[in-house]
Amino acid sequence: MHCESALQQRNNCKSRNTRVPKMGATPKIAPSMLASDFANLASEAKRMLDFGADWLHMDIMDGYVSLLSWTSLLKDFASLSFYFFSTSCFSHFHRHFVPNLTIGAPVIESLRKQTKAFLDCHLMVTNPIDYVEPLGKAGASGFTFHVEVSKENWQELIQKIKSKAMRPGVALKPGTPIEEVYPLVDSENLVEMVLVMTVEPGFGGQKFMPEMVDKVRVLRKKYPALDIEVDGGLGPSTIEMAASAGANCIVAGSSIFGAADAKLCFGKSGEMLTSFLQPRSKHICF
Amino acid sequence: MHCESALQQRNNCKSRNTRVPKMGATPKIAPSMLASDFANLASEAKRMLDFGADWLHMDIMDGYVSLLSWTSLLKDFASLSFYFFSTSCFSHFHRHFVPNLTIGAPVIESLRKQTKAFLDCHLMVTNPIDYVEPLGKAGASGFTFHVEVSKENWQELIQKIKSKAMRPGVALKPGTPIEEVYPLVDSENLVEMVLVMTVEPGFGGQKFMPEMVDKVRVLRKKYPALDIEVDGGLGPSTIEMAASAGANCIVAGSSIFGAADAKLCFGKSGEMLTSFLQPRSKHICF
Repeated sequence: MHCESALQQRNNCKSRNTRVPKMGATPKIAPSMLASDFANLASEAKRMLDFGADWLHMDIMDGYVSLLSWTSLLKDFASLSFYFFSTSCFSHFHRHFVPNLTIGAPVIESLRKQTKAFLDCHLMVTNPIDYVEPLGKAGASGFTFHVEVSKENWQELIQKIKSKAMRPGVALKPGTPIEEVYPLVDSENLVEMVLVMTVEPGFGGQKFMPEMVDKVRVLRKKYPALDIEVDGGLGPSTIEMAASAGANCIVAGSSIFGAADAKLCFGKSGEMLTSFLQPRSKHICF
Repeated sequence: MHCESALQQRNNCKSRNTRVPKMGATPKIAPSMLASDFANLASEAKRMLDFGADWLHMDIMDGYVSLLSWTSLLKDFASLSFYFFSTSCFSHFHRHFVPNLTIGAPVIESLRKQTKAFLDCHLMVTNPIDYVEPLGKAGASGFTFHVEVSKENWQELIQKIKSKAMRPGVALKPGTPIEEVYPLVDSENLVEMVLVMTVEPGFGGQKFMPEMVDKVRVLRKKYPALDIEVDGGLGPSTIEMAASAGANCIVAGSSIFGAADAKLCFGKSGEMLTSFLQPRSKHICF
């Protein structure tokens, strides 16, 4: 069957036994461990890898506001006055960037001891540069930071990520225009992946935002070989939309971990993705 | 043997099967899960409880600076000018409060599903009030916040912690005078535990600071029935110092999890603690 052979091809492509493998825009399913049982992370990871997971997606959130946005606000003296006369402003900026604290380097370090899988770390943190060294040391494979908090230091950040043998990626929130990531991809192909958030970052289990696929479409047209990852609300019913627009890396959390038959759901997601990427394979990487 | 009977007595005292048990200053050993294998947290917790752990100590760190300190700085206009002309000032405040990101509510929630143990959560975070609701929902038992970041809202914080059926505690860093916690204990006995940090918070495996026992001694004299916890560099060789000064809750991480024989080390720690608390038992709670 077409789907099976595509799935087999995807499985042949994957490079789970090297920490930072060379990759093109091959199809990848990355179960989001945020939806897993954190008390049994090693066995949850093994279960997903046995299903055929290409990457393990690790959501690292510091439960905090964008301090960079806040400092930008403070640097603007008009806004500064506003700050001093409005505590609600502080509350807004203080609490609503990523209001969840998940896991950090110690968890990645423990998981790395259990598996050689590609640990696809998505940094939803205020100051990603602080995490490059600890995550590199812990054994992270991919380090995807948010463009919204890295406008002033993305070049230094990417350099540091690469110096720690990790694969840099850039993520963007639903409200951020796709154009903001272009400099990070254009300039000597600095980042190797763009993660298009298809929900507001912070929590699992949210509903897919279909309007985000336009970003994916534009990005794929501009960068045929780039890894484009989508994250948020993805499952068998929404992968089609994302994959047909050009996404090749699918992060799936609740849809797999919350399914009555996780293996079946995983298989369906993989088949859906590969059936869309198969025709494009001649033009991109596999 | 004296130690065995004391240990037995301690084991009889513990109330691991209720989420928020009624407690006095009974001896408690709380293994710090920061030093455990996070990829197998459920089995690590079970191992410690099988050894006789009274509580499981959970270090929740947001990898971030004290924003409250920073805002206090900003509110001071002299310091504000300093801020704008000194990026090193920003870097200092930005990076050196608790430069580690560990675990958050999703991990507590997963662990709670595996055990009814008292989950003694130590919040090394910038804004603890943000974590009351998610941790209460996740199943945390104790909620210990730092006095350094709660000077302006500790009353509200304690009220919220209690409203979520958690047991409030207050922690203080080595550089913070013990007097700073008095209002939080004196005022209708608002907090039920004081955690005296015996290392700088942020990472496991640090060396015990013996000068911190003076804080414990002063505190025990003032509050005979208060739970006084010590955290940092505790093991069989240092518990004596802390327990003889009056500490009754011992957080032990690396010394247990890093020991060649964890069970033996746990036993020795428990015996050491109970041998010191036994004589005082008539005057305090058991």
